[in-house]
Amino acid sequence: MPRSSRETSTGGGDGPRIRPIGIIRSTLKKRATAPRQGAEGAPDAWLDVLPHYAAALDGLAAGDEVIVMTWLHEARRDVLKVHPRNIKRRPLTGVFATRSPDRPNPIGLHPVTVKKIVGNRLRIGPIEAIDGTPVIDIKPVLGRRRR
Amino acid sequence: MPRSSRETSTGGGDGPRIRPIGIIRSTLKKRATAPRQGAEGAPDAWLDVLPHYAAALDGLAAGDEVIVMTWLHEARRDVLKVHPRNIKRRPLTGVFATRSPDRPNPIGLHPVTVKKIVGNRLRIGPIEAIDGTPVIDIKPVLGRRRR
Repeated sequence: MPRSSRETSTGGGDGPRIRPIGIIRSTLKKRATAPRQGAEGAPDAWLDVLPHYAAALDGLAAGDEVIVMTWLHEARRDVLKVHPRNIKRRPLTGVFATRSPDRPNPIGLHPVTVKKIVGNRLRIGPIEAIDGTPVIDIKPVLGRRRR
Repeated sequence: MPRSSRETSTGGGDGPRIRPIGIIRSTLKKRATAPRQGAEGAPDAWLDVLPHYAAALDGLAAGDEVIVMTWLHEARRDVLKVHPRNIKRRPLTGVFATRSPDRPNPIGLHPVTVKKIVGNRLRIGPIEAIDGTPVIDIKPVLGRRRR
């Protein structure tokens, strides 16, 4: 079956596949009511790491500053320009000049603190990602501890 | 044809596909000799954005601080523990506690300065990504200019 002309013309269907490594469990249930950034009043949440990837957590500890990367599964991937922060009077701007979730590869970057670790669950925050958001990576912030 | 048992067991083949939006053109040709971080002596490079995505650059300007996200196409995705910075006397550590390129979703985060923009080519740096590395996103650094 033919793919859409857009996917055909960009080759967008041919890249590598993301492998979710965990999922966000949050009291935030809907994108429409979630803060746009973690520092804008977001809560803490649980990051449940899939058992297959639990060994990759070894070395993380409470107090660590990390970047959690998510796949913003409700985003639109065909949007190239947006009104920043969805304020209509602001001029249309290329998505690469904004932090819009709508973009060709809707990956969220969330700088958070690890509050505690219980088995393969991390308590993290503050984080604006909604409940059910797939997690695709966890990286330590470069700086004090270089690994 | 059956997939490997590893992919079957993790469901790793079933996630969304990455769509490359550009490519790095660098004097760095080999992973083995590239710096491990941009601040460790890396050069500037060109980021060639695919024509389909050029409109998404609108609003970026020379002097902007951005995070370039790459797909580290030479990385191994089945590695869960590494010796940090490949120093064998350092204990094996989970990849989520390191910045190893070998990890389930080998996405590189590169904080860089936009030095100039020529059509759909950005001169950026310093950046340790090697020539031919696919680019998957460009995001402004949050801070002075909130968009």
